[in-house]
Amino acid sequence: MKDKLFSGIQPSGDIHLGNYLGALKNWIALLDEYDAIFSIVDYHAITVPYEAHELQQRILDATAIVIAAGLDPERSTLFVQSTVPEHTELCWILGTVTRISDLERMTQFKQKSQQFYQTVNMGLFAYPVLQAADIILYKAKAVPVGEDQAQHIELCREIVRKFNKTYGETFPEPQAILGEAKRILGLDGQAKMSKTMDNTIGLAEDPKSIQKKLNKAVTDPARVRKTDPGNPNICNIFTLQHFFSTPSEIEYVDRECRVAGIGCLECKKILGKNIIAEILPIQEKYENLKYQKKYLQDILAAGSKRCQEIAATTMEEVREKLGMR
Amino acid sequence: MKDKLFSGIQPSGDIHLGNYLGALKNWIALLDEYDAIFSIVDYHAITVPYEAHELQQRILDATAIVIAAGLDPERSTLFVQSTVPEHTELCWILGTVTRISDLERMTQFKQKSQQFYQTVNMGLFAYPVLQAADIILYKAKAVPVGEDQAQHIELCREIVRKFNKTYGETFPEPQAILGEAKRILGLDGQAKMSKTMDNTIGLAEDPKSIQKKLNKAVTDPARVRKTDPGNPNICNIFTLQHFFSTPSEIEYVDRECRVAGIGCLECKKILGKNIIAEILPIQEKYENLKYQKKYLQDILAAGSKRCQEIAATTMEEVREKLGMR
Ligand code: SF4
Ligand code: SF4
Repeated sequence: MKDKLFSGIQPSGDIHLGNYLGALKNWIALLDEYDAIFSIVDYHAITVPYEAHELQQRILDATAIVIAAGLDPERSTLFVQSTVPEHTELCWILGTVTRISDLERMTQFKQKSQQFYQTVNMGLFAYPVLQAADIILYKAKAVPVGEDQAQHIELCREIVRKFNKTYGETFPEPQAILGEAKRILGLDGQAKMSKTMDNTIGLAEDPKSIQKKLNKAVTDPARVRKTDPGNPNICNIFTLQHFFSTPSEIEYVDRECRVAGIGCLECKKILGKNIIAEILPIQEKYENLKYQKKYLQDILAAGSKRCQEIAATTMEEVREKLGMR
Repeated sequence: MKDKLFSGIQPSGDIHLGNYLGALKNWIALLDEYDAIFSIVDYHAITVPYEAHELQQRILDATAIVIAAGLDPERSTLFVQSTVPEHTELCWILGTVTRISDLERMTQFKQKSQQFYQTVNMGLFAYPVLQAADIILYKAKAVPVGEDQAQHIELCREIVRKFNKTYGETFPEPQAILGEAKRILGLDGQAKMSKTMDNTIGLAEDPKSIQKKLNKAVTDPARVRKTDPGNPNICNIFTLQHFFSTPSEIEYVDRECRVAGIGCLECKKILGKNIIAEILPIQEKYENLKYQKKYLQDILAAGSKRCQEIAATTMEEVREKLGMR
């Protein structure tokens, strides 16, 4: 039997290149190695303001885009978190072995509580505890995540140790699997690529719009004129070249940028062409899948059924250990 | 159809006079007026260190003692919280409309986090949110509580308003019903009667032990010698007389204490006799019920079944409103 891998994605069709490079490609590469479980995490999504009447459509869009990007539903399990309420039950239980002080020092919480300062709610605070429940409910051993989530997985391991120590050996400590793609900066070159920062390129975005956004994107800030030489090492566009362009194109840009042999616009055209070439097939598949509501719902229903069974087994064991049965 | 009343009790056979006067008697008086639902709250109990292997026995003991005290299972619904996991699901959802700052100012949390400072966990912090879920999962309108819980019910009302505003009118705002018995002090005359403070008289405690504890209990601290007159108004023993003794006994003590006509020991004998007279029938019924495991389990199972049905209906509506279905 293969080890289990767990990964979650927020319900949204607006997956951006940061998600794609940081998580999605990484997941897909691991499909054969693991028994992979992917969750559309709607319990997490409701921790920030959202439109309730759009949620179901967003869930289907997210399902369509991850399948389009290569998440083969024949070789993995895809389900919606809220169809397995045991996630919240285990979350409550894990909360009783999670120190408040540990949650207070989570970077993501600190950031989000700045962003949504009018609405800093309990859900945002408890987010990493639910995330821990998500993973260990399936006794997953591997969790492919972006660098920014590594701290949460570390906390999950600590929660597991505390639980096992209190109630007896029950859960394995999951391992974070960090992708090759380190933190992908946004087009503003400042923060991480993130929808709320409006600095992203969407995986389903129109090619013309992609090139237009790239053309306006921040590069080496010292390169003001085309005749100024640039430094690719500090340029986010050059980072992106690594993920989409050929070795000879990368070498060409690296060399010519430093001697002002090419302008940023030319560099961005090379990148744009390659991004579009890679994501166009995904977009076509997405456009096609998007409208196959029944097909997507059937995949999710099959996933829920499997996950409900695993969750029921785990929770039976957990309640037993807690003396609740 | 009668309005619903919800009340929870920690799983323990060691119910003390503070619980009895502050909550239990109050509940029992309301049985006819309301459709009363009583929960043995094991999800709450695990927020402080406990012995997992004792939990089931404690649940049965708590069931036996409340029935012995007058909670007629024919006229009310009695169940164990963890048999209805929807409590935790609704708790997660309510957490997303609960401000962290509101939880931080809860008096009970502040007290408990001092008491269990090595183990201040997320469960203690989220305690009032689960309590809110407990109540509104059944759309209860009345919540009989001791004075110390009034703040939590106020927060529950605020959570309800926020939920209804965000997702549309769903839950009624529950009302706290405060019993006549104000805060019952412990035998030390200092803090509230509380098991962790070791200043209690147990409802199931041996009569000899009760009298012995009373004899050592703190009275008017200014009354050092028997010949010193006392002040009943500041004496916790006198407060207790109000709940157990006859009007003429109360009048007698009030008068004679002030002129040093009786000693504290005599006063305590009157109180002890009356306490024992009231609780002895409860103790006898408890001793008898305690061993009828099957009878108690059947009552709890019937209660669970009914509560599971109500909870499923409420959660269907909630998930619908959140866009989760
Ligand atoms: S030429 Fe390319 S790598 Fe050099 S600064 Fe411009 S965008 Fe960046
Ligand atoms: S006589 Fe009774 S009321 Fe007066 S101080 Fe003593 S215990 Fe209290």
